[in-house]
Amino acid sequence: MTAEIICVGTELLLGDIVNTNAPYIAQKLAQLGINTYYQSVVGDNRERLASVLDEALERSDLVVLTGGLGPTYDDITKEVVAASFDLPLVLDKTVEQRIQDMLEAICVAYTHNNSKQALVPEGAVLLENTCGTAPGILLDRGGKTVILLPGPPHEMKAMLDAQAFPILEARTGETIRSHSVRIFGVGEAELEDVLHDEMVNASNPTLAPYAKHGEVELRVTARGSSAEECEQMMDPVLHTLLKRYPENIYGIDVPNLQTALVRALAKRGLRIATAESCTGGLVSEYITQVPGASDVFDCGICSYANEIKHKLLGVQQDILETYGAVSEETAAAMASGVRTLSGADLSVSTTGIAGPAGGTAAKPVGTVFIGLADRCGVQVFPLHLARQGSDAREWIRHTTALNALFLALSATKRLHDD
Amino acid sequence: MTAEIICVGTELLLGDIVNTNAPYIAQKLAQLGINTYYQSVVGDNRERLASVLDEALERSDLVVLTGGLGPTYDDITKEVVAASFDLPLVLDKTVEQRIQDMLEAICVAYTHNNSKQALVPEGAVLLENTCGTAPGILLDRGGKTVILLPGPPHEMKAMLDAQAFPILEARTGETIRSHSVRIFGVGEAELEDVLHDEMVNASNPTLAPYAKHGEVELRVTARGSSAEECEQMMDPVLHTLLKRYPENIYGIDVPNLQTALVRALAKRGLRIATAESCTGGLVSEYITQVPGASDVFDCGICSYANEIKHKLLGVQQDILETYGAVSEETAAAMASGVRTLSGADLSVSTTGIAGPAGGTAAKPVGTVFIGLADRCGVQVFPLHLARQGSDAREWIRHTTALNALFLALSATKRLHDD
Repeated sequence: MTAEIICVGTELLLGDIVNTNAPYIAQKLAQLGINTYYQSVVGDNRERLASVLDEALERSDLVVLTGGLGPTYDDITKEVVAASFDLPLVLDKTVEQRIQDMLEAICVAYTHNNSKQALVPEGAVLLENTCGTAPGILLDRGGKTVILLPGPPHEMKAMLDAQAFPILEARTGETIRSHSVRIFGVGEAELEDVLHDEMVNASNPTLAPYAKHGEVELRVTARGSSAEECEQMMDPVLHTLLKRYPENIYGIDVPNLQTALVRALAKRGLRIATAESCTGGLVSEYITQVPGASDVFDCGICSYANEIKHKLLGVQQDILETYGAVSEETAAAMASGVRTLSGADLSVSTTGIAGPAGGTAAKPVGTVFIGLADRCGVQVFPLHLARQGSDAREWIRHTTALNALFLALSATKRLHDD
Repeated sequence: MTAEIICVGTELLLGDIVNTNAPYIAQKLAQLGINTYYQSVVGDNRERLASVLDEALERSDLVVLTGGLGPTYDDITKEVVAASFDLPLVLDKTVEQRIQDMLEAICVAYTHNNSKQALVPEGAVLLENTCGTAPGILLDRGGKTVILLPGPPHEMKAMLDAQAFPILEARTGETIRSHSVRIFGVGEAELEDVLHDEMVNASNPTLAPYAKHGEVELRVTARGSSAEECEQMMDPVLHTLLKRYPENIYGIDVPNLQTALVRALAKRGLRIATAESCTGGLVSEYITQVPGASDVFDCGICSYANEIKHKLLGVQQDILETYGAVSEETAAAMASGVRTLSGADLSVSTTGIAGPAGGTAAKPVGTVFIGLADRCGVQVFPLHLARQGSDAREWIRHTTALNALFLALSATKRLHDD
């Protein structure tokens, strides 16, 4: 089965917003074993949308459209799809009532426009929208399937995951399950090199890498007659991966490093504190992204100036003068200092040269030290982050923060193992 | 003139990475008055790329392609374009030498594959790549123009801005200049309502809004016979905008709020400090994104726990007990506290309920207080940020941080005016 994705919206075409819907849908389709060969963006224009849709229906089995399901006159996706299949649009009273109730609940008046959203191409399957008013639509005609999803990403994702995906899954005649293996500190190229045979030859379960900043997500997907069978098929693959990368795999089915860290700390009843220089608050920002972070995090110090490193964190003046603010010694003293100040079980510090200015021959831009302090003592990890180009500063800061989270997570696990 | 954008890469098609090239190119073309009607993504597949390219050449005057210019066998964009126009690829000795020098400088061996990057379709114009090895290409044939840019965004942007854009501009026979007006705290809908006539009717200069988180970028673009003429045409428009939104326009041609704030502080020789609760370090993170932030920023405290608010920032226990951590009183005390602690001229604090948990009837999720302290005293600004859905926590935190930056910027300007 082949698919393509059409995202409708003048704001996408103008470059006003970045298209995050297409990659999300593509990943989900890949999990189902459906190949996406084309993605298109087209504006809210009847003629151009119709021509893109007709071409897509010619070359693909499944066409997923997002956007243009709103109540205003320039939302035309549903109308174009209905016209393409020569189907009338009929009013769905249940949907109309749902929209009325929904708008009433948020004190918005129901207008004639809204009833447009309750129009459905004859014979289509409705996909409920739990986050908005526009229902989605699934239509089968002439051996082709068209799925219409709303444009706002949170509406689209909720509807795809909860409604469209299970229908497509059922059609494969199999049960599909997958696990996301999160690997930090191993490059995608290295991973592909080591796992090349498994990635290329394995047909069930499959192994697909997705490169992210500082890490790779390996998606293991199995198809079988039941969830249990899928899990049994994936078990040895997961086991092999965990054995091959015992240090680097930081979680399975966890959304990101910061969530893994907060969960690991919470599970062990530990608290963490941060002392940041070059990352400027990014490490504490990552940690507090996670709901419930307050159970494990009390205090972060962004000590950008030496005076603050000394005054608040107790970094000795002679350390700052002898070794400099970007040094193993300062990183260690910052980590110790914030641990004492906050009373946390564990602390992490960052100091480095993010650039573009401030680099020297001995300590070029990208020189970074990460400190970790716990009841066993203090450890410092140096990083040498080489990056050219206009995004170097941002990249160095983010890479430093992610390494700090990863090192803190490893330390948390070690504290537990003691 | 109509254009379309084709982004080539299997990693885009799989949803491995988000396509930021297409919106960037679309915005630049819009500045030139070139309408983009279609964007496509296609994998590194000869046949499918050729079919997408041929269709694009049929319906558009200009086709901009990105990606697939690398040295490996699966980089096929240049080959497909040359084949489509029936042009031979010829080795460009200057490019070959440049690649050799570039690789030597970073101690990478030159291999046979690299010479592939020095192949150029006969008669094409070369676009120099200042950030990588793959040169870009501009080709005119049969009344159509094709531009090939590299896939990595920083290489693509540098090449588009410095080389492709001026060529396209010259072809318009006019000089094109534009200014970016940054407006915070006015919704896009309101702005379109107020400026509707100017946006719709103005043909030169044009006025185009780009919605961003918490703000709108209004792009004013003029075409004339010289840069001076363009500036003269834009002056009254900018003047009118500044008069209409004197409080909300925080900068012209400034990339973002944090840069405007750091520049405004530096210009006045002022220093700022931050005390954050619900934003968890995001405000200091934003400030320190800006190169040279250390000239204006020494100290940020992320006081996530009440104990830290009390111990480090001196927020009195009875304030925390009587009014709660999320209150006008606590925000004021946090701002004062960090100002005293750091010795900064100005300080900003945030406290609020980012959710999903922690909301009450009196203080629902989205209740936020931002404190500002300077030599004139302390002010607190309440925000009521209503947001549903899975991204609510992130949205509330970012909106709070952006408001904190905006309020700090306004305060900085006021301090100067005194």
